[in-house]
Amino acid sequence: MTRQLTIGAAQLGPVNRSDERGAVVERLLALLHQGERRGVELVVFPELALTTFFPRWYVDDLTETDHFYETEMPNAATQPLFDEARRLGIGFALGFAERTLDSTGATTHRYNSQILVERDGSVVATYRKMHIPGHADHEPDRPFQHAERHYFEPGPDGFGVWHAFGGLVGMAICNDRRWPETYRVMGLQGVEVVLIGYTTPIHYVPDPSQDALAGFHNRLVMSSGAYQNGTWVVGVAKAGPEEGVELLGQSSIIAPSGEVVAQTLTTRDELITATCDLDWCARYKQTLFDFDRYRLPEHYTRITAQRGVIEPPRLTEPPSDPRGQQ
Amino acid sequence: MTRQLTIGAAQLGPVNRSDERGAVVERLLALLHQGERRGVELVVFPELALTTFFPRWYVDDLTETDHFYETEMPNAATQPLFDEARRLGIGFALGFAERTLDSTGATTHRYNSQILVERDGSVVATYRKMHIPGHADHEPDRPFQHAERHYFEPGPDGFGVWHAFGGLVGMAICNDRRWPETYRVMGLQGVEVVLIGYTTPIHYVPDPSQDALAGFHNRLVMSSGAYQNGTWVVGVAKAGPEEGVELLGQSSIIAPSGEVVAQTLTTRDELITATCDLDWCARYKQTLFDFDRYRLPEHYTRITAQRGVIEPPRLTEPPSDPRGQQ
Repeated sequence: MTRQLTIGAAQLGPVNRSDERGAVVERLLALLHQGERRGVELVVFPELALTTFFPRWYVDDLTETDHFYETEMPNAATQPLFDEARRLGIGFALGFAERTLDSTGATTHRYNSQILVERDGSVVATYRKMHIPGHADHEPDRPFQHAERHYFEPGPDGFGVWHAFGGLVGMAICNDRRWPETYRVMGLQGVEVVLIGYTTPIHYVPDPSQDALAGFHNRLVMSSGAYQNGTWVVGVAKAGPEEGVELLGQSSIIAPSGEVVAQTLTTRDELITATCDLDWCARYKQTLFDFDRYRLPEHYTRITAQRGVIEPPRLTEPPSDPRGQQ
Repeated sequence: MTRQLTIGAAQLGPVNRSDERGAVVERLLALLHQGERRGVELVVFPELALTTFFPRWYVDDLTETDHFYETEMPNAATQPLFDEARRLGIGFALGFAERTLDSTGATTHRYNSQILVERDGSVVATYRKMHIPGHADHEPDRPFQHAERHYFEPGPDGFGVWHAFGGLVGMAICNDRRWPETYRVMGLQGVEVVLIGYTTPIHYVPDPSQDALAGFHNRLVMSSGAYQNGTWVVGVAKAGPEEGVELLGQSSIIAPSGEVVAQTLTTRDELITATCDLDWCARYKQTLFDFDRYRLPEHYTRITAQRGVIEPPRLTEPPSDPRGQQ
């Protein structure tokens, strides 16, 4: 008996600044219904699915952007999605901007968040993005901003893994997926499927030589994270030309082998599905990547002991010890 | 002005059990001379280059295999390689089985080692493989053994990085390359080029579904390690049908972008070269993978605090906190 989970990656095309939440939720519902017709048990929506990717504009006063953030989830706009998903018995993950409030209604935190909801409508967890890319200050020479570090603080909770959907489920958001530590911290909790929403401008302003590699890098980091931890990875994009910025599509469902088993073809609203055998993970977790047998944490200390680079000392003389160990 | 280093990846075809060291060193010299004609400054030879991959056979008494190990480096058999490389002003990395001795001549340790020699003939360092794959006991049901854990103990020195060849050079061996920690520990020391010898049977006995993916996985782990740390990676195989076991070729030189810029086509002795711009690393190290700016070691603690998997507790009731954080 294998544990089969049919997952839908529900890519979204652009969401413009003028789009109302209600119109976006209609699109999410349409994808949910497509998922139902295709036997999907879990639908994964992208990062910041309910709004445009507003960190591409800079404002000095964050409160001017309060309307991009949700202060509760579900709320009036998203309740229809929660209700319909529960009615259909389909779980989902949904990315959104989150603004937490104190008892007086004042803003306490701003996070880039993703909620996971089980098939019975219960909330499993909310993950808050930790690796916030881009910049915090206005950089007027850019063709567009990527001021995520202005709009969001890093989530405080770490990378959790939860018993859900008959397996062990983890979450990450966009830039998190480029860091091998993300997958490894979840792999060390036995994760079997990692759900990742992303929004990736194809034009990388600090080094445009990377633009032509955007799809390659997206696949590379998710495939290696899958393989090296023996886990399924579901990466779901907000894609296409959003407010003049072309966003990468290539939403993918990736097996524990690192193989892409489903990928979107368009940069529009598009659902792809795969039936994921969660027991396939054991082929990697119990062989080549049997962590308990093969890992050497005593030699990994730099990974947690230091944040940035510390170069080795430069020897002025050739080492007297021929092994040259430092 | 950029720092250009022309590197040769000197793949070897099979080395049989009956092959004398001298005959192997002749092949290494032929590849070295090819490198000289192509302007190479650093030649990388494979893992256990001087002998057949003897862990494919099991013997109870390790001393019967003493002749596969070197007790000094250089030694009589390899001195011609060291001499000729120094004469040509070409550095090299060479993998070999190492047996250390105490003052009485008794064996103290057995390592799977790789020595790095500068263009002037000085020894930069010897790296001793840490992630030892396979098994320690005889497994008679296998078509061939992979008893590396019988023949080698893990190296004690960690992953070093050295100032050499005008840049920062690190080393790893074979199975080390599958572990993201390997590259990250070196990345945290600013590594700009990682030299990796490998010997990979295409048939993976514990899970043959991985056989058809051997080349994909080889490329996946080295490309992601390169990209995620902004470093060149040079992976060099012992390839082809060695003593009845088909070994993966696909030796590669990989850029900090993760792109393969040179790859062998055969499974025989074959030299591939690339002129590696070490300053290209900065395009990644100073942007997307600016560790000091973006890494979050406080959330990576599991990577060093635990060796194997610790699954999250299974909640019997849905979490009362709707965030479900644990």
